[in-house]
Amino acid sequence: MKLLYPTSITLDTKSLEGFSVTLQPYDVKQPIPQEHTDAEILITWTNTSDNLKDAASRLTKLRWIQSLAAGPNDVLNAGFDSSKIAITTGSGLHDRTVSEHTLGLLLNAARRFYEMRDYQLQRKWPGHLGGPQPDRPKGAFTTLRDAKVTIWGFGNIAKTLAPHLTSLGAQVKGVARRPGVRDGIEVYSEDKLAEILPETDALVMILPGSDSTRHALNADRLKLLPSHAWVVNVGRGTTVDENALVEALKNKKLGGAALDVFEKEPLPEDSPLWTAPNCIISPHAAGGRPQEAEVLIADNLRRFLAGQELKNKI
Amino acid sequence: MKLLYPTSITLDTKSLEGFSVTLQPYDVKQPIPQEHTDAEILITWTNTSDNLKDAASRLTKLRWIQSLAAGPNDVLNAGFDSSKIAITTGSGLHDRTVSEHTLGLLLNAARRFYEMRDYQLQRKWPGHLGGPQPDRPKGAFTTLRDAKVTIWGFGNIAKTLAPHLTSLGAQVKGVARRPGVRDGIEVYSEDKLAEILPETDALVMILPGSDSTRHALNADRLKLLPSHAWVVNVGRGTTVDENALVEALKNKKLGGAALDVFEKEPLPEDSPLWTAPNCIISPHAAGGRPQEAEVLIADNLRRFLAGQELKNKI
Repeated sequence: MKLLYPTSITLDTKSLEGFSVTLQPYDVKQPIPQEHTDAEILITWTNTSDNLKDAASRLTKLRWIQSLAAGPNDVLNAGFDSSKIAITTGSGLHDRTVSEHTLGLLLNAARRFYEMRDYQLQRKWPGHLGGPQPDRPKGAFTTLRDAKVTIWGFGNIAKTLAPHLTSLGAQVKGVARRPGVRDGIEVYSEDKLAEILPETDALVMILPGSDSTRHALNADRLKLLPSHAWVVNVGRGTTVDENALVEALKNKKLGGAALDVFEKEPLPEDSPLWTAPNCIISPHAAGGRPQEAEVLIADNLRRFLAGQELKNKI
Repeated sequence: MKLLYPTSITLDTKSLEGFSVTLQPYDVKQPIPQEHTDAEILITWTNTSDNLKDAASRLTKLRWIQSLAAGPNDVLNAGFDSSKIAITTGSGLHDRTVSEHTLGLLLNAARRFYEMRDYQLQRKWPGHLGGPQPDRPKGAFTTLRDAKVTIWGFGNIAKTLAPHLTSLGAQVKGVARRPGVRDGIEVYSEDKLAEILPETDALVMILPGSDSTRHALNADRLKLLPSHAWVVNVGRGTTVDENALVEALKNKKLGGAALDVFEKEPLPEDSPLWTAPNCIISPHAAGGRPQEAEVLIADNLRRFLAGQELKNKI
């Protein structure tokens, strides 16, 4: 049995040895060489869409694709035969790195580092942002301490992020399709949004991209947020109505937005988001660094060979 | 007995009641009114130097000054008679807010939000900062995970900051005059700097301002840091030789610097720090928001009336 692994990421292949499987590296930007089209297992990471489409038509023995992406839309859209091929995601490999970036965006917003930068570029001291300040004023998002943070989309990333926020003094709530208490955080169903959004200082969006999440944060829901609230999106760009967001920012109906994902990426040069007030543009940089991928691959490889259910199966 | 408290901060004076003391508000920007020059206790916060100098000459019955600043250089330089007057600092009131700002500066550095901002202002997508990235590459400071963070000056702020860094995966060491293990962090004496600095990805300076700490981080010590290392200063500006720092930044001998304090504040318009590569200028914004000051004041007031040793006494 042959497993193809990508050279687009440095994998510690020693951690994948010990199985009755041939480990074969491949280039994710080229067609799979003819002699390796007999592979039954394909690991993907940053493959070109041409590579995936080609693989979908030529890897006729394929039975399992392990993507290292948390949301492998690229694989799902490449035309693989899902009746024959199991697809598993890299959910969990990005929890820590996305959490760290999200925390950074929240602090960038609260401490206004982006505004300080604008002053710095003009050699101006932004005195209003330093020196003696009111402590935790109402109607402002100036610190995570006592801030009400709502995380919409409560999977592994949220579970990793929440303790960091809590330890900085934030009051964290979750929103997800499935309510309940997870890791000590109260997670509400989406029909409670009308009550939760007006009580939110910072809304962190970690929703996956799909038809059902498209424009989940629309004009009506944006209106429910207080005018000092920030929106941080590290999920998928399609989950926020960007036009409605721009309107809210321009009309000061929102404190600000820190966005790592966009409806179209790279963000087009003519997007009004670039210059919307209090808008922080991060170039899809939260994740992109799978960590401990070998552990997931080895675990799933063992399960695959044993005929057991795979982890992170779509 | 009379206690003067400043109107420059909103204090919950209810929390100071119950003692045989008259609580009297005063304006920190004006001379103390004649009828209150009999005060024995003075609380200070953002007083003008004129106010303090005037108080030093006219408050002849003064026995104790409680500053709400962590480093009350203003009070120390105002000419109070230290043989008669006890001076206590606001050490502890700024731990959480300075920690949060420091964490924000570290993430700003690692995740390069300042560079993203520069691109945003030109409507340019900084593709090199997003998308697939190497995970924790050697010789770069791109994440706190596994980063070696050295905190120089290991008091209350460092103790508050360290757990946040540790929980994000950083390996934290301390440096201070007094070595030992504090809250689980190994703190080394300053004579170990020559060994520790070359093994540092981010150096956080939280030293107080004094003659003995002046230019503690000088050209020789900057040379000991790896060329990818960042310097974050949230202590006092005098502890870093700014000229040497600018040289190191210009010559790419240092990864970057995130500075909240400066030798001269506001930072003069002609300072080369404004435009030094990878230099983040924050306008003395880490602290400035004393938290739970009433708890410290009440505790020290009780001690003062009981003739016991005061907390945070200089």
